Amino acid sequence: MRFDVVGLGVSTVDLIFTVDQLPGSEMVQRAGECVIAGGGPVATAMVTLARLGAATAMLDSIGSDFFGSFIRSEFAAEGVDTGGLVVAPGRTSSKASILVRKEDGARAITFSPGDAPELTPGGVRADIIRASKILHLNGRHWDACLHAARLAKEAGVLVSFDGGAHRYDPQHRSILPQVDICIAAHNYAAAFAGTEDVAQAAKALLEAGPRIVVVTQGAAGSRVFSHEGEAFHQQAYRVDRVVDTTGAGDAYHGAFLYGLARGFALEESARFASAVAALNTRALGGRAALPTLVEVETMLQQ
Amino acid sequence: MRFDVVGLGVSTVDLIFTVDQLPGSEMVQRAGECVIAGGGPVATAMVTLARLGAATAMLDSIGSDFFGSFIRSEFAAEGVDTGGLVVAPGRTSSKASILVRKEDGARAITFSPGDAPELTPGGVRADIIRASKILHLNGRHWDACLHAARLAKEAGVLVSFDGGAHRYDPQHRSILPQVDICIAAHNYAAAFAGTEDVAQAAKALLEAGPRIVVVTQGAAGSRVFSHEGEAFHQQAYRVDRVVDTTGAGDAYHGAFLYGLARGFALEESARFASAVAALNTRALGGRAALPTLVEVETMLQQ
Repeated sequence: MRFDVVGLGVSTVDLIFTVDQLPGSEMVQRAGECVIAGGGPVATAMVTLARLGAATAMLDSIGSDFFGSFIRSEFAAEGVDTGGLVVAPGRTSSKASILVRKEDGARAITFSPGDAPELTPGGVRADIIRASKILHLNGRHWDACLHAARLAKEAGVLVSFDGGAHRYDPQHRSILPQVDICIAAHNYAAAFAGTEDVAQAAKALLEAGPRIVVVTQGAAGSRVFSHEGEAFHQQAYRVDRVVDTTGAGDAYHGAFLYGLARGFALEESARFASAVAALNTRALGGRAALPTLVEVETMLQQ
Repeated sequence: MRFDVVGLGVSTVDLIFTVDQLPGSEMVQRAGECVIAGGGPVATAMVTLARLGAATAMLDSIGSDFFGSFIRSEFAAEGVDTGGLVVAPGRTSSKASILVRKEDGARAITFSPGDAPELTPGGVRADIIRASKILHLNGRHWDACLHAARLAKEAGVLVSFDGGAHRYDPQHRSILPQVDICIAAHNYAAAFAGTEDVAQAAKALLEAGPRIVVVTQGAAGSRVFSHEGEAFHQQAYRVDRVVDTTGAGDAYHGAFLYGLARGFALEESARFASAVAALNTRALGGRAALPTLVEVETMLQQ
């Protein structure tokens, strides 16, 4: 296989400033720190995998503007294959200004989704999917998602679905029969199943198709369930100083898939993913502190 | 002469969003419009001149990051010569997030100046200054400013100084003997002279060196004074719908110098500059609505 994991989703650019106060009225303030960082759940999962040493590719439709160029060049710098990025001439990619209050980390997010069109089924590089072990998606570019999942199943490629927080959409039910691994935020699983009970929600997700279901609960850790009846809790790891939790969930997804692609057992994958997610909170920006494999192994040996 | 005007100053990048509310607390909101635009008073004056058809160059020290690249590529796209930009490897250029409330145009600005070092005297391209009719500066990169002004005087190049709003610094007094044209915001002139009276402040500025002094007062227009005793008021032009006044003053500077470089009389230069400044308020961002020569001539003929 040429790729461990190929992602299909929306890539964004965040301009993140730490500030003393969130500006409720006209003001000029100098930021503490400022970083520009790529974002988007699937995109950050691919960068997580690449940082760990896995071979990855990204499928997306991006603008031809400054932000589209940034997205492409950041993928290239991280070693994520960009051959599956479709550039829409004259269109713009998604960007956001994120003000983070130093005192408590409260965030004021202003986003502009850009006007690049959705990735179409015809724009999906079938050869990249067929050359991968796992396809990872989260429901964005919906028609392309359905098409890509079908291509993956035909080729024996595993399909992974990211059920993002506050992103549950009833139409996602139709893709779950083709999904092998579903990692969902607690409120996604609850919205899907109509119950806050994690075990019951996971059971409902397993019955919809996936053979592995993980429900993530931030600092409360994650719970893993499988068709084979496995069910366990993985605690969240702690780091000395949490700077920014942006991208922690995306890092968990990428690292869990890294484990599966490398043949780890489920317990080992979950433990590995928890460590990677925790390490990613050490710096401002959703990708700044993504660890290398050596950093993760060092943490896991402590 | 190879260049009509060469500018020496700090170039910045602004990410501007129109929003329904300024975020005083944690929130996520979708922006109305979003533009990314180069800024900085001298830099915008150079783009104004280039848009009008003049030959210009910019002297600055920029970062090697995405913002530095954006600054360089925007100058190149506008036809401003970039041979005098010094790139500091591994350093970052200045950027800002600007939230503009739709209701009333109130702005919340969060800026991060970056860590590119100041332009040094040794970094100033003397050949570019000697190939120009006018050198335009505003006191940023102070040591380089003093050096550049000396080079200009020795070569018979006119020196123009932008006294920006809220930017008065007593050290500026030492450069004024070498300045030919000083265009100052009203509060700069008042801070310099210790009086709110425009005529008295202009007289003090004229006595410090410049042979032409202009005091700008936004919607109240501008007042022009010369060593030869000229003194007149130029009204501000109006456009149908003011969207954003960012960069209006910078556009006035660039257009006034355009007039001088083309041999316009003072009255003609002031009238031309007022029209260009007004036209630049038609769109979001400090440069988006900078006019071409034909657009200005059309406005002046009405």
